[in-house]
Amino acid sequence: MEHVLSMKDLTRDEIYSLLDDAQKIINGEQLHIQKKTLALLFFEPSTRTKMSFEMAAHRLGISLLHFTKDTSSVQKGESLYDTVKTLEALGTNLVVIRHPDDAFYQILKEKVNIPLVNAGDGKGEHPTQCLLDLFTIYQEFGTFKNLNITIAGDILHSRVAKSNAYALKNLGAVVKFAAPFIWRDEDIPVDYVSIDEAVEQSDVLMLLRVQKERHQASAIPQVEDYLSNYGLTIEREKRMKQGSIILHPAPVNRGVEIDDRLVECKRSRIFKQMHNGVAIRMAIIHQLLKERGKLNVVAN
Amino acid sequence: MEHVLSMKDLTRDEIYSLLDDAQKIINGEQLHIQKKTLALLFFEPSTRTKMSFEMAAHRLGISLLHFTKDTSSVQKGESLYDTVKTLEALGTNLVVIRHPDDAFYQILKEKVNIPLVNAGDGKGEHPTQCLLDLFTIYQEFGTFKNLNITIAGDILHSRVAKSNAYALKNLGAVVKFAAPFIWRDEDIPVDYVSIDEAVEQSDVLMLLRVQKERHQASAIPQVEDYLSNYGLTIEREKRMKQGSIILHPAPVNRGVEIDDRLVECKRSRIFKQMHNGVAIRMAIIHQLLKERGKLNVVAN
Amino acid sequence: MEHVLSMKDLTRDEIYSLLDDAQKIINGEQLHIQKKTLALLFFEPSTRTKMSFEMAAHRLGISLLHFTKDTSSVQKGESLYDTVKTLEALGTNLVVIRHPDDAFYQILKEKVNIPLVNAGDGKGEHPTQCLLDLFTIYQEFGTFKNLNITIAGDILHSRVAKSNAYALKNLGAVVKFAAPFIWRDEDIPVDYVSIDEAVEQSDVLMLLRVQKERHQASAIPQVEDYLSNYGLTIEREKRMKQGSIILHPAPVNRGVEIDDRLVECKRSRIFKQMHNGVAIRMAIIHQLLKERGKLNVVAN
Repeated sequence: MEHVLSMKDLTRDEIYSLLDDAQKIINGEQLHIQKKTLALLFFEPSTRTKMSFEMAAHRLGISLLHFTKDTSSVQKGESLYDTVKTLEALGTNLVVIRHPDDAFYQILKEKVNIPLVNAGDGKGEHPTQCLLDLFTIYQEFGTFKNLNITIAGDILHSRVAKSNAYALKNLGAVVKFAAPFIWRDEDIPVDYVSIDEAVEQSDVLMLLRVQKERHQASAIPQVEDYLSNYGLTIEREKRMKQGSIILHPAPVNRGVEIDDRLVECKRSRIFKQMHNGVAIRMAIIHQLLKERGKLNVVAN
Repeated sequence: MEHVLSMKDLTRDEIYSLLDDAQKIINGEQLHIQKKTLALLFFEPSTRTKMSFEMAAHRLGISLLHFTKDTSSVQKGESLYDTVKTLEALGTNLVVIRHPDDAFYQILKEKVNIPLVNAGDGKGEHPTQCLLDLFTIYQEFGTFKNLNITIAGDILHSRVAKSNAYALKNLGAVVKFAAPFIWRDEDIPVDYVSIDEAVEQSDVLMLLRVQKERHQASAIPQVEDYLSNYGLTIEREKRMKQGSIILHPAPVNRGVEIDDRLVECKRSRIFKQMHNGVAIRMAIIHQLLKERGKLNVVAN
Repeated sequence: MEHVLSMKDLTRDEIYSLLDDAQKIINGEQLHIQKKTLALLFFEPSTRTKMSFEMAAHRLGISLLHFTKDTSSVQKGESLYDTVKTLEALGTNLVVIRHPDDAFYQILKEKVNIPLVNAGDGKGEHPTQCLLDLFTIYQEFGTFKNLNITIAGDILHSRVAKSNAYALKNLGAVVKFAAPFIWRDEDIPVDYVSIDEAVEQSDVLMLLRVQKERHQASAIPQVEDYLSNYGLTIEREKRMKQGSIILHPAPVNRGVEIDDRLVECKRSRIFKQMHNGVAIRMAIIHQLLKERGKLNVVAN
């Protein structure tokens, strides 16, 4: 594992190895990496993902370089490539990037000598979110084989949906989508069901955020009707299978994708996902740096 | 002491305990807290308060999560509650919040399981500023009993005035206000004096900043006349009581609240307040984490 | 050495001492400074310089205070002087400042009791960039005596040109400028050559960035013609002296100052400059804090 850029690059063994390491971290195993620096390049807004990486770095004892678009040379027109080469020249050991361009990492991975982590590329993928979703599901069910998983919402614009549909199918789950017609993505070979079918069939119901900031107001199915037509209402939650769980990558639009009162309900793993995200990112950083043979690990 | 949100929640014993701890820190006692993370959520501009907390965290050995409104999910419409719950899920041990809404913390404190510190709520309170003011006064006089203290300036919009008036009276001081009519706050049971009476009577003259950014231009008593009518001029400083001191929460509008040449005069404790602010915030963070029983303290 | 503000303040011995220390750092000598805090005040955009100082601080074990204009009291109209005095009162041990005003440091250095580092003052100087350039040249040639060095580009608006012209001449180099007429600076006693003469004569060709953000569009010699008229083309690179090197302070406008394909060519030391920048800044910080006798150094 040289980089973490797309779920398509990771073998099943690599995925299970990350899930195992994350579980060890949750169980209390402490890892400390000395004298390493991680840079965060976020060209799009983020709370959870950025802070999750920051927390992961803190817990590993890794220093952070905070790059922010507004006060940087990107204002002077510098390319992503030159920015990353600069970070490499400064001695950064790993770079985490969120960028609005799909597959922004293609040129970088050929020309950069440090590990890169994709923290979201345009409408492409979001592999670290996917890995924390996998981890949360694996904690619950101990397997992916034959699990019924429905991903519901704005499939077309969701990098989370793309990463998860691919990875979950590859690991043996039965994946379905539930989405308004205009948000379906015919390029992904997944069957569609209605939200009402989804709640009755699914072991895992993964709700997606209505990304108001990504599309024109006119393109949004009326937000006031979204919950009743496509979202998880109180009534639908009651029809969910025994033992089934609710995931959401957050931030949640309360009352849109999900009834406000369900965000912290018994089935919800939404805040647990965030908790798990720190562990999985610690596992990713640790493995990427270990792979490069540059790691001074102090296990204690 | 579970949170530090309002001076009204703190007992006298709790206040004196914080002042004692801060003095020990100033005297050189070193405290180190291992493997903790503090998040700073500032929804309003700040240099002093934010950096003071950062410095306090550095000196305690605590990691920081830097949340900034501009690059965060708040752009995506996330509520303060969900942001704080996210920080909790990520493993943050304490959250410091400045927010434009009065008493923003009411809902949070009922539903969040980590200590919260109010770093300024709208026109409400500013308890950590108040505590550093108390600390600076206590260092000077060793008591609050019967001290004459005048708070002068924009009382109406000042959270510092509200916190200090309550706390100082509670600790036995005689508190008065001096303010232009339009900036008086009739809801606080404190007598008003003129600035000329104030300089002659007060052991402590606490000047407030004219918060130009908080009110319409039209509502400001003409700035050019403010100093001569309501501010501390060279002439007025000469009439101050022997041993009396000048406080100001800063940033100072030089030549408005106070003559430029008095900012660093012998009576001024303005920069000492900032210095003290780091110690009092270290004491606050330390006590809040200790209280939760989650603390690994290394005293050395 | 009390501050690093202008190359004119540094003696040759002080410069050579910094270059020696930086080389020791590159060679693997590890320095660690305990319980110190460095503040970064950047009032202009920066990637390289800011992150270079951050990396230098991380590698020295120094804590950072991140000051950002947007979320700070500068919005409330606070002066640079009061901001720096505040940092001093908070216990900051060293302040690095970039500011759009020429010689912003004049008043500060008389009234502030902690070391200051100029990270770029308006159209004035950029001494730490100059020192990393000197270091890169010294690594290559082992001397400055009689080296032919041409600085090419927007001399008039370049603080890098001013710092380097002065320092290199002082160290014995033969310095020339190459620039379009409108970008010449008649106040600096340096001869001008054409870019074609420069490539044939120079041991070091230092290209400057066309600072599009600093002047009106109308004042820029047409960007599409800049490379062929004033920049380093493939053809010109072929005519460069054997053993000669190319420097650029970056960020590079690829295809403007230099052909895109030459940025990482054999003669280019552009990314090496960035790498060297961390070491020279570590040396600067270390010497400034040592000088103040406030240093707990752990050499290991």
